[in-house]
Amino acid sequence: MIKTPVCDLVGIEYPIFQGGMAWISDGTLAAAVSNGGGLGIISAMNADAEYLRGEINKARELTGGKKPFGVNIMLASPFADEVAQVAADEKVPVITTGAGNPSKYIEMWLKSGAKVMPLVASVAMAKLLSRTGVSAIIAEGGESGGHVGELTTMVLIPQVCDVTDLPVIAAGGIADGRGVAAAFMLGAQGVQLGTRFLAAEECSVHRNYKDKILKATDISTTTTGKRLGHPVRSLKTPFIRAYAKAEYDSSISNEELEAMGAGSLRLAAVEGDAEKGTFLAGQIAGMVNKEQSAAEMIKEIFTEAEVILRGANQWVK
Amino acid sequence: MIKTPVCDLVGIEYPIFQGGMAWISDGTLAAAVSNGGGLGIISAMNADAEYLRGEINKARELTGGKKPFGVNIMLASPFADEVAQVAADEKVPVITTGAGNPSKYIEMWLKSGAKVMPLVASVAMAKLLSRTGVSAIIAEGGESGGHVGELTTMVLIPQVCDVTDLPVIAAGGIADGRGVAAAFMLGAQGVQLGTRFLAAEECSVHRNYKDKILKATDISTTTTGKRLGHPVRSLKTPFIRAYAKAEYDSSISNEELEAMGAGSLRLAAVEGDAEKGTFLAGQIAGMVNKEQSAAEMIKEIFTEAEVILRGANQWVK
Repeated sequence: MIKTPVCDLVGIEYPIFQGGMAWISDGTLAAAVSNGGGLGIISAMNADAEYLRGEINKARELTGGKKPFGVNIMLASPFADEVAQVAADEKVPVITTGAGNPSKYIEMWLKSGAKVMPLVASVAMAKLLSRTGVSAIIAEGGESGGHVGELTTMVLIPQVCDVTDLPVIAAGGIADGRGVAAAFMLGAQGVQLGTRFLAAEECSVHRNYKDKILKATDISTTTTGKRLGHPVRSLKTPFIRAYAKAEYDSSISNEELEAMGAGSLRLAAVEGDAEKGTFLAGQIAGMVNKEQSAAEMIKEIFTEAEVILRGANQWVK
Repeated sequence: MIKTPVCDLVGIEYPIFQGGMAWISDGTLAAAVSNGGGLGIISAMNADAEYLRGEINKARELTGGKKPFGVNIMLASPFADEVAQVAADEKVPVITTGAGNPSKYIEMWLKSGAKVMPLVASVAMAKLLSRTGVSAIIAEGGESGGHVGELTTMVLIPQVCDVTDLPVIAAGGIADGRGVAAAFMLGAQGVQLGTRFLAAEECSVHRNYKDKILKATDISTTTTGKRLGHPVRSLKTPFIRAYAKAEYDSSISNEELEAMGAGSLRLAAVEGDAEKGTFLAGQIAGMVNKEQSAAEMIKEIFTEAEVILRGANQWVK
């Protein structure tokens, strides 16, 4: 068994979180991960209070109310205030945040009894947020899917560990036991995986999306959106190639560019629209090759990590 | 002590290579690294046979002819054919390659007795080159400095290890013992560092360049050149910011863009020109904070890696 302080902090069996993915990480997936011994996380995405309350109830029902789970608050959401309130009212055990600085909600969340864990992509944010009463820092490298920072996991994790005494959870580019073991060597005490859980049997993402992940190779993803200041990693598709080309065409305005991408995440996740969808995925998609239950995935990953960590001194003479 | 099959393969004490950096990795730096127990590598860059022969002689002299060293052949060089021949004629112990497919030189190099180790940035190239008689694969993640691929070290290394039985040397994003330990967990049996050696006392790069590396933080680098198809990672400077802006300006032609960057590497490395120079650096520059001899660096890195690897099972119960 692998046990780190993150297990005790959250009350989970394995130090693994499932990332909050918009249109994908619903109560069903979160419950499957939590039932499998990890921490399932519901994405509040751009949805309203009613949606989030429904998914929280679903997760509670599917875990028999016996397992911790989390909610990810996307701070750029137009409904950020109301979903932040729901997370507190519902006494969600763990609240993670993305796309911004969650400082204004932290006091409310701590009062509700939640453990708060902001996601950061730079050393400065890690340093700043470490002092706000949060319980851990999720540091995400730019090889991850969805909105990405510039620093890679290999570079980010040790530098974040150097500026905080809180447990660090590594995200980005991890899909198997080797990634977990590497993250631990860099100083992390837990991992967060998104792309691998896209292939979970309990993941309700459209079949086309899942198949694209299963077929992806190492070079299947790219980032777009740098021109508008919010780069996003997704699978290369004809639509994404066209978008990337448009980014370098200064006769196309930023507004037109923005409009091109609008609604494309839903089209991918819900409709499986190969033409107009944006299929968010991490670079590690090339290593995600089989559909399994979330519980099997977790067990497999940590069985492998344990073997590797036990043999880590094989080259030390 | 840390000993891997890479040590025996090359005849070095520590499984660490110093990356071949144009205008920087000369015979003096290579000799310092080799004398420190690693493998120093001379960059043949865009220079001619005479330059390379001179640096090889210098490295031999400074190591008393007793230490192995390498030469990096940049395959896109206009002098590639002649420097490839020099490496063979001079019976250089290790030949690494970058920026292309070295297949046409491999037979000649193997006949000269060299161990050949191509640098790859994708799984397909690793698979292809593994079958050409080479001795090892250097897999470099896009967090490295200079010409970069898209895949990060965390994602690339395990996937390369999955398609080759040769030893894999991890490059990109490594500057200390944590990075070495992480690379081993991903399956690598050696590491290659560039940015950290920029701060070696024996590195003859311009003082301004060295100071910029020592002062760099986690967010000091960026990539440019994607529009022209050969992205390069360097420190953010006013020149680089202007270049990045020009990339999105389609009234500026590709030829004009190309001209903007011409000669800027030499200006940085040799002249220390803060205005017009391009200061290549890896993302890990933020972790390079002190000037030391190459030998001290190597010793420090592996002392740290040994402690970490010995304690790797701390979370395994």
